[in-house]
Amino acid sequence: MEKPKYTDLTAVKNEYQDRDYEIKISIPEFNCVCPKTGLPDFGTIRITYTPTEKIVELKSLKLYIIKFRSMGIFHEDVTNKIFDDINLALCPKQIEVIGDFNPRGGILTEVKVSNKK
Amino acid sequence: MEKPKYTDLTAVKNEYQDRDYEIKISIPEFNCVCPKTGLPDFGTIRITYTPTEKIVELKSLKLYIIKFRSMGIFHEDVTNKIFDDINLALCPKQIEVIGDFNPRGGILTEVKVSNKK
Amino acid sequence: MEKPKYTDLTAVKNEYQDRDYEIKISIPEFNCVCPKTGLPDFGTIRITYTPTEKIVELKSLKLYIIKFRSMGIFHEDVTNKIFDDINLALCPKQIEVIGDFNPRGGILTEVKVSNKK
Amino acid sequence: MEKPKYTDLTAVKNEYQDRDYEIKISIPEFNCVCPKTGLPDFGTIRITYTPTEKIVELKSLKLYIIKFRSMGIFHEDVTNKIFDDINLALCPKQIEVIGDFNPRGGILTEVKVSNKK
Amino acid sequence: MEKPKYTDLTAVKNEYQDRDYEIKISIPEFNCVCPKTGLPDFGTIRITYTPTEKIVELKSLKLYIIKFRSMGIFHEDVTNKIFDDINLALCPKQIEVIGDFNPRGGILTEVKVSNKK
Amino acid sequence: MEKPKYTDLTAVKNEYQDRDYEIKISIPEFNCVCPKTGLPDFGTIRITYTPTEKIVELKSLKLYIIKFRSMGIFHEDVTNKIFDDINLALCPKQIEVIGDFNPRGGILTEVKVSNKK
Amino acid sequence: MEKPKYTDLTAVKNEYQDRDYEIKISIPEFNCVCPKTGLPDFGTIRITYTPTEKIVELKSLKLYIIKFRSMGIFHEDVTNKIFDDINLALCPKQIEVIGDFNPRGGILTEVKVSNKK
Amino acid sequence: MEKPKYTDLTAVKNEYQDRDYEIKISIPEFNCVCPKTGLPDFGTIRITYTPTEKIVELKSLKLYIIKFRSMGIFHEDVTNKIFDDINLALCPKQIEVIGDFNPRGGILTEVKVSNKK
Amino acid sequence: MEKPKYTDLTAVKNEYQDRDYEIKISIPEFNCVCPKTGLPDFGTIRITYTPTEKIVELKSLKLYIIKFRSMGIFHEDVTNKIFDDINLALCPKQIEVIGDFNPRGGILTEVKVSNKK
Amino acid sequence: MEKPKYTDLTAVKNEYQDRDYEIKISIPEFNCVCPKTGLPDFGTIRITYTPTEKIVELKSLKLYIIKFRSMGIFHEDVTNKIFDDINLALCPKQIEVIGDFNPRGGILTEVKVSNKK
Repeated sequence: MEKPKYTDLTAVKNEYQDRDYEIKISIPEFNCVCPKTGLPDFGTIRITYTPTEKIVELKSLKLYIIKFRSMGIFHEDVTNKIFDDINLALCPKQIEVIGDFNPRGGILTEVKVSNKK
Repeated sequence: MEKPKYTDLTAVKNEYQDRDYEIKISIPEFNCVCPKTGLPDFGTIRITYTPTEKIVELKSLKLYIIKFRSMGIFHEDVTNKIFDDINLALCPKQIEVIGDFNPRGGILTEVKVSNKK
Repeated sequence: MEKPKYTDLTAVKNEYQDRDYEIKISIPEFNCVCPKTGLPDFGTIRITYTPTEKIVELKSLKLYIIKFRSMGIFHEDVTNKIFDDINLALCPKQIEVIGDFNPRGGILTEVKVSNKK
Repeated sequence: MEKPKYTDLTAVKNEYQDRDYEIKISIPEFNCVCPKTGLPDFGTIRITYTPTEKIVELKSLKLYIIKFRSMGIFHEDVTNKIFDDINLALCPKQIEVIGDFNPRGGILTEVKVSNKK
Repeated sequence: MEKPKYTDLTAVKNEYQDRDYEIKISIPEFNCVCPKTGLPDFGTIRITYTPTEKIVELKSLKLYIIKFRSMGIFHEDVTNKIFDDINLALCPKQIEVIGDFNPRGGILTEVKVSNKK
Repeated sequence: MEKPKYTDLTAVKNEYQDRDYEIKISIPEFNCVCPKTGLPDFGTIRITYTPTEKIVELKSLKLYIIKFRSMGIFHEDVTNKIFDDINLALCPKQIEVIGDFNPRGGILTEVKVSNKK
Repeated sequence: MEKPKYTDLTAVKNEYQDRDYEIKISIPEFNCVCPKTGLPDFGTIRITYTPTEKIVELKSLKLYIIKFRSMGIFHEDVTNKIFDDINLALCPKQIEVIGDFNPRGGILTEVKVSNKK
Repeated sequence: MEKPKYTDLTAVKNEYQDRDYEIKISIPEFNCVCPKTGLPDFGTIRITYTPTEKIVELKSLKLYIIKFRSMGIFHEDVTNKIFDDINLALCPKQIEVIGDFNPRGGILTEVKVSNKK
Repeated sequence: MEKPKYTDLTAVKNEYQDRDYEIKISIPEFNCVCPKTGLPDFGTIRITYTPTEKIVELKSLKLYIIKFRSMGIFHEDVTNKIFDDINLALCPKQIEVIGDFNPRGGILTEVKVSNKK
Repeated sequence: MEKPKYTDLTAVKNEYQDRDYEIKISIPEFNCVCPKTGLPDFGTIRITYTPTEKIVELKSLKLYIIKFRSMGIFHEDVTNKIFDDINLALCPKQIEVIGDFNPRGGILTEVKVSNKK
């Protein structure tokens, strides 16, 4: 399966560009592949952003996220990559991406990338 | 069924205009229609405002909210529209409207429109 | 039954007037009467205050609260009235009163009156 | 909108007819109309059945359930009607239908129709 | 206020007399008066019954329950009285009434009257 | 302080002797003294019984329970003693007493004495 | 990726064959592919069994479960297939398999296959 | 039993005096005696402090707290006294003491004494 | 460290041998070593038994449980061994031992050994 | 077993050094030995840091944490030591370490060391 890239994200017109408001999207069914073991890693991705001219179309976001299912990638990298891709696709005023991953060996990790002020 | 509009909201006199206080209204039984699929979308609407001269009468708010049941409208739009309609009807000092929608395809969305300082 | 008034609240001496501290009182068994339907309305009253010379004696607060059981009064009014009565009885440095009411017709309301800085 | 009827339910072949097993379906986004007030009533429908030759196709069940949105019907009747319609469409070995409705005026009701032994 | 009695309960026709099914009603906003202290006691009443020819109309049940608000009565007695009154009004096949009362002096009590087999 | 004994429990007339019903009493504020360390042990006592001619008066039960505060007694013994004392005071048809104790050294214990059939 | 089959499950010797005991395994990170939409379906698989001569080695069970990630299969079929495969691999005395699937379109399904007596 | 006093608290050397850090101690098994009724009052004491040269030894804190079991004292006073005693024993940089008391007559109280900036 | 064995468990006299009652012990701080990886495995042990002549002394049970910390042993074996050791030490009328282990690789296991009828 | 030291922590390259982001690691399976009693103490360690050039490799962190299992150390010391060791190994921009320990004798302690601004 091809890798997720920012052009997979369909940006549609923000109908309320004259005001700042916040869109929070939560995806509890995320999974990718651990580059070390080749086994799937599960977690929840939480995206919060304040749009400028564009908002993300949810169906395209879902298909983009599904592409991570067969991709080997570390927790820190996947969270930063989603942050970068949404920035490229939407140019939001503010954005925060959290990757909250299931325990492995009794250890939980959460990665938060944010440009919130 | 006719569409919800701000004149559906009955504004009654605020008896405590000399002080700032906050009214928080939570409506967990909201539903409208998805413009793409024609199927109903469910969620919770949360309104928090600091009144000036008027407060909203709850029965009229309920009837206004019910009119969304047969209206095709996106998550971002419905939250912004309720924000606009309450502003038009009540001119509150501060207001925040949150639309917190049930998962579709494993994705949850929450939209927050606020003029809180 | 006679109406609740601020003189029902017994104020006793604050033994620690030389320092600011906070007293939070929660009353989950509040009920009054809806002026429109004549039916009882239930909720929780939460009072948080920083005393000056006086603190409220809890037994008198309980009897004061019980007097609302047969009184027709709106959510906004009851919360503001309790705020006013405690201010008259205690002159606290800071006070916040929250009325958190049970759902009616699928709608919950919470009223918050505060002079906290 | 036309009324829901048992022929709306698409029955597909049960691939495991040689053994008894249980299918439990939970629909937390149910709503219909109160025949007295004309206002919407919300609740959760829970269906548990042991199939014989047929199982219900979920998309058709969803569309059947949506037809109740504009239908005036009491709690007891809607639960019994769903029980009857699934019996007519699937002839299951055992079936239980629960209608668990949101509070109205501080009262919750749950109706359970079952032929479980 | 006059005392609650079984004739306050309006019995309406059970439309599904040919089958046994269960109706569960939960009333978390119950309150009566403690005969010893004269202070209000709060709790939840839960009624589960299998109707014969009649079911209880919920509005009349609500008004019946409200009459306990000014009645001095012990926990054991109120639960047994509701059990008796519903039996007189509805002659259900089976019935269980639970009175689940809020703590007083750090002690919680629950009374269960049932003719379930 | 004198030790708790069954004569501390006031038995009052059961007004509904013609039927079996259940009274469940929960006391989350129990504490006694560990005979080994002399330090207080905390827990919850749960009593469920079906009365014959007598029911226990709650105020006397509370004062009886408070007497354990300064008594050195093991978990198994305190639960069995309460079981015995209620049997002596009330002669109930059925009774179950549970002592559910807070963790000590990372170990929780619960003792259940019952003559339920 | 090849399909999961019962020979993927490594059976190791049960060291306590002289007694009946129960092993419960819960896999909250299950996912397969919906045959209709091609999109991933998520859920939890719960397996409870009483072993005879063999127990399942957990690492092999994990690898078997992972093979469903790219397999198109319905909820009813996947639960029955896991039931069949464990029966073939282990010949347990009793076994129950539950597939508890995440909501799609506001509908949750749970499938339970069991030979428990 | 003798009254609790600040000299009951054993202060041991803080091994990390070169940095500010926070110690939070939670004691859910607190009880004292109500000066009005003579009956025990239960609650949780929460202490949070930033040490200077000394930290409190936990065993001595436990024995100090146990001395309140037979002491008649009001909620406000006990919270302020613990605040004063820890200040005298430890001279912490910052300290907050919360007394969170169980409901009496349906009313909960929480007292917070703090010198946090 | 030496291995845990049944003689580590101190059995003390059951003072209530004339009646059947149940003792439930919960140990949420269990850990042993995985024989495959050499890494620690965590879980909760739950023991429920009806004593005959002896009950287990809790301090000895704690020290017995601590010996598993450095012992390599599988989930099935540790649960069966504790079952056997308590049987040898106490000869209880009935006993159930549950080992409820933390997730490893996204899989949870629970082992239940019981002679309950 | 040798003692944990900062050189046990493998530091790997941070691939996103041009931006500040936060990594939160939670280890609910921590245990060490109480220096006073020689018995194990359990708790959860929570580490939150903003990396500069290096991030910690999770497997090495796990092995480092396991070394505390046989080490006698106080709550305050273990939390400060982990804080120091991660600082030495990673030189993070900001770091907070929380040690949240299970109750002993009915008392819970939490230690927080932080250089967050």
